[in-house]
Amino acid sequence: MPLTMQKHISLDAILAMEKQIRVHLINSLGGFKSVSLVGTVDASGNQNLGIFSSILHIGANPPLMALLFRPSPPERDTLKNIEETGFFTINHINEKIYQQAHQTSARYDSEVSEFDATGLTAVYKEEFLAPYVLESSIQIGLQFKEKIDIHINNTMMVIGEINHIYFPEDCLSEDGFLNIEKANTITCSGLDSYHKTTRLDRLSYAKPDKEITSLLQN
Amino acid sequence: MPLTMQKHISLDAILAMEKQIRVHLINSLGGFKSVSLVGTVDASGNQNLGIFSSILHIGANPPLMALLFRPSPPERDTLKNIEETGFFTINHINEKIYQQAHQTSARYDSEVSEFDATGLTAVYKEEFLAPYVLESSIQIGLQFKEKIDIHINNTMMVIGEINHIYFPEDCLSEDGFLNIEKANTITCSGLDSYHKTTRLDRLSYAKPDKEITSLLQN
Repeated sequence: MPLTMQKHISLDAILAMEKQIRVHLINSLGGFKSVSLVGTVDASGNQNLGIFSSILHIGANPPLMALLFRPSPPERDTLKNIEETGFFTINHINEKIYQQAHQTSARYDSEVSEFDATGLTAVYKEEFLAPYVLESSIQIGLQFKEKIDIHINNTMMVIGEINHIYFPEDCLSEDGFLNIEKANTITCSGLDSYHKTTRLDRLSYAKPDKEITSLLQN
Repeated sequence: MPLTMQKHISLDAILAMEKQIRVHLINSLGGFKSVSLVGTVDASGNQNLGIFSSILHIGANPPLMALLFRPSPPERDTLKNIEETGFFTINHINEKIYQQAHQTSARYDSEVSEFDATGLTAVYKEEFLAPYVLESSIQIGLQFKEKIDIHINNTMMVIGEINHIYFPEDCLSEDGFLNIEKANTITCSGLDSYHKTTRLDRLSYAKPDKEITSLLQN
């Protein structure tokens, strides 16, 4: 039960807002978001690194993840590279690099590598075309599979298949759960707010008429 | 630089995994996710409440959010209701209700209200058709706009336009940012892990050759 007043805002009031206020508010409503660095190269091998908070798990078999692209220029460099080369990496962000990660959202010219501009380190592995972020503890290499146009507001969803996963060995549980909090992965809210996490619990598979239990041993 | 061994898993090894282990692992890679309760009614007014961790901000003008639906039965009740009535709510989950929220993922029969089954309270406001969750501090009412088929793995994305927002008045910043951490919104990772957050910082809009600063006053 809230102790403070509940405020109500309707669609008309949202549409009447000053643009930047609306952008901050509506972005905040999406809850805490996955935030990662996406690494690509263009056909000439020029590197690009961009921060994305619109990353979505699509399915496990085949293993698929999606990125949402808005029509703004920095994101479109990443999209162009994925379309040119067919490969990209998703690199989790941790507490040590979130300021550098945020800096990659600046509108650098296409020929500038955000790795160089922010001091993050590009690393290539297993002959995979796109660069990973060395400072990231969870790194994922993906191959482009499908692009879906979202006509209602000129956005695009790009789906990739996971080809490679790299993570700290001691973060993997026996049941396949990867403890991303232990790997220091952080989350974001809105456009610019970064948060670390504290686990409340892992809960058992829910069934009707059965009490949920904790999956944690201690 | 990691102190523990880095483990590498390739696509072949992912595809060869036991199904549940693969599901846990691939779901974990998506990072921390927005997790919310989606409230609907069918054409006869029967209530449904389901937990979703596949919620995506699509755009601010018009204000749009999306849900991803997998082909499993409990989610399909929510999808059927949205298609029948055109309305749904998204309700943030906080520390007090996350166990009840998780319990809504049990495969209840279609005629069972997950509100009744889990002890959460349905509330109707402003003549909006779909029920909100009283215990949720951030509540969003949406109107169905578009359904997009993702053929690659038989999933569907449903896009809704935000018609109403309710939130604690003291969580709104002057610039439009809504402090969802102050509203006790939590996040999840994988299929079953719930986490509260601690803010690291809010960072200024990034520009080339300009130092990022903190937006927080103290």
